[in-house]
Amino acid sequence: MLTVFSPDHIRHDPHVEMADGKLVPAVEIPRRAEMVHFAVLEAELGEIIAPDPLDRALVEQVHDASYVQFLESFWQRWLDAGRDPNVDDTFPFVWPTPGLRKVETRHLDGLMGRYSFDAGTPMGSGTWQAVSASAATAQTAAIKVSEGLPHAFALCRPPGHHAMPDAYGGYCFLNNAAIAAQALRNGGAETVAVLDVDYHHGNGTQAIFYNRSDVFFASIHADPMDEYPYFLGHADEIGAGDGEGFNLNLPLPIGTLWPDYANVLSHVLAQIEAFKPDAMVISLGLDTFERDPISQFALKNDDFKTLGAALGGATVPTVIVFEGGYAVDDLAVNAVNTLTGFLDGHTTR
Amino acid sequence: MLTVFSPDHIRHDPHVEMADGKLVPAVEIPRRAEMVHFAVLEAELGEIIAPDPLDRALVEQVHDASYVQFLESFWQRWLDAGRDPNVDDTFPFVWPTPGLRKVETRHLDGLMGRYSFDAGTPMGSGTWQAVSASAATAQTAAIKVSEGLPHAFALCRPPGHHAMPDAYGGYCFLNNAAIAAQALRNGGAETVAVLDVDYHHGNGTQAIFYNRSDVFFASIHADPMDEYPYFLGHADEIGAGDGEGFNLNLPLPIGTLWPDYANVLSHVLAQIEAFKPDAMVISLGLDTFERDPISQFALKNDDFKTLGAALGGATVPTVIVFEGGYAVDDLAVNAVNTLTGFLDGHTTR
Repeated sequence: MLTVFSPDHIRHDPHVEMADGKLVPAVEIPRRAEMVHFAVLEAELGEIIAPDPLDRALVEQVHDASYVQFLESFWQRWLDAGRDPNVDDTFPFVWPTPGLRKVETRHLDGLMGRYSFDAGTPMGSGTWQAVSASAATAQTAAIKVSEGLPHAFALCRPPGHHAMPDAYGGYCFLNNAAIAAQALRNGGAETVAVLDVDYHHGNGTQAIFYNRSDVFFASIHADPMDEYPYFLGHADEIGAGDGEGFNLNLPLPIGTLWPDYANVLSHVLAQIEAFKPDAMVISLGLDTFERDPISQFALKNDDFKTLGAALGGATVPTVIVFEGGYAVDDLAVNAVNTLTGFLDGHTTR
Repeated sequence: MLTVFSPDHIRHDPHVEMADGKLVPAVEIPRRAEMVHFAVLEAELGEIIAPDPLDRALVEQVHDASYVQFLESFWQRWLDAGRDPNVDDTFPFVWPTPGLRKVETRHLDGLMGRYSFDAGTPMGSGTWQAVSASAATAQTAAIKVSEGLPHAFALCRPPGHHAMPDAYGGYCFLNNAAIAAQALRNGGAETVAVLDVDYHHGNGTQAIFYNRSDVFFASIHADPMDEYPYFLGHADEIGAGDGEGFNLNLPLPIGTLWPDYANVLSHVLAQIEAFKPDAMVISLGLDTFERDPISQFALKNDDFKTLGAALGGATVPTVIVFEGGYAVDDLAVNAVNTLTGFLDGHTTR
């Protein structure tokens, strides 16, 4: 399996984040991607290539241009405003919630709030370099699949699935999975399915495609009544307008084990098969793992093999996009288990 | 002038807040109200009484009942969820910004985000006691004025004018000024004007009365393009529906001095006079002061005398509600200057 990976991810190097109401050590750290990179190398899964330059027009098919411009210009604006150049963890602190207006302010703190939805996603001097490389990674993997590869692994970091059309949050800035899906569409796929198996709901991917019937979004995740992102990912969200019926959320309770997960996964895969997509994107979060420090499902190392095999059973060209997963020491084995499981599933059909 | 004051404000005792992207020492601290309380005592401004019990039905005329219930039950929920009982600074960290849903989650972090709009407003074990006493302070002052006093000073803390119908933020939880205005309405005033002279826009008060023609809201404040709360307080916000034409925002630039402020104040007072209110509420923030640590207007100590005299020139029964002001050592003189100025203005007409 081809892997696309950029070392530029280390430019995004947060130290703290806001969680449970306090500043705590950041969990979305460079070592996550490094662990998976070395695991892919060691397992000899296949060629590893660097991404092509980011196609801005592609990005702007799934994100507002003003938002992309904000992300790109943020650090220069921070410096221009005379803010501390040695800070690598900047946070917004006020948001345009319902009843307030989404105003494009002159002040940077207003802009940060305007273009975000949480206080847990630090932005620093190198964030844009890492974010654009991560998006380019998804783009490149998708183009390779469009050009004929049966599958590719986009080893993205930062992750992307929480990123809204015009707002960052949940450690995500540009929505890598959405960019991959759009690239597949641009590359000739009439229909694309996005399956999100991260522990957390992919609110951004859902929001981006919510009114579209050409991209079917399905997600298995912790019930947002109990878990981040709380405000999206509920079962009654089925799409709207042209997209009605093309959004499927399967929230599961805290503590879910593999057998229950597997049942729901079978159901979702059947729904995806019924949709007959020309291509597929998998948002691969590994935070369903039993020892993930911020998550509460209980998949074991070996379950990821079975998960991978089930995902590989789909017959369509597939881009696997790395999302969350914070049990750093187990990321290697869980990633390789999923990817080798996928290859086994794919070849044994 | 009668002052209403509750010592229960000290139950809300935050230590840190999120500002400019980091945790910094809290500025909305008990000493603020203590300083003003002692200044009112020393200046012998008149009787100081404790508030009557809070009238919940009154509060629910300006806030959603579910929101009030959330504030009241918060600390018990925090304990019930097994969270750290020794923390006195709890913060939300994700919000239902546009594109997300305002969901009533089971998880407390979701609830906190659902009912707030910023990360700068710590909530702790005694917050509800302080907040309900602060709201009762405004209520009691308004009832005294309804019963015939020409004026009263509600020495509220925490402040209130940022509090939305269903969301806390900006150090505010219940909207004391809105509660006072509603109490005046209930007490027989057909029309009430609320004049907000805090440095920051009173987004909550505006939002509460935005569709009503019986309460005219006017605010002089730092341009939200440059200053908190950013997402409300712009000049084009003139009210909606029945309330169209009954909302007046006068944003002023950073660095505004008294002469420019005074010009705008005259204009606003003329507009209020044209509205012919039966009663008035003044949201008195003292953070327009030149040495306020988080604000950037440049009023001097003596300017508050002139400000008070101008406010006192209005002929109608008036409730003065204490809002912001964080230059703690100057709060005493600025408060007394404003209040004695008000009395001079009131008696010399």
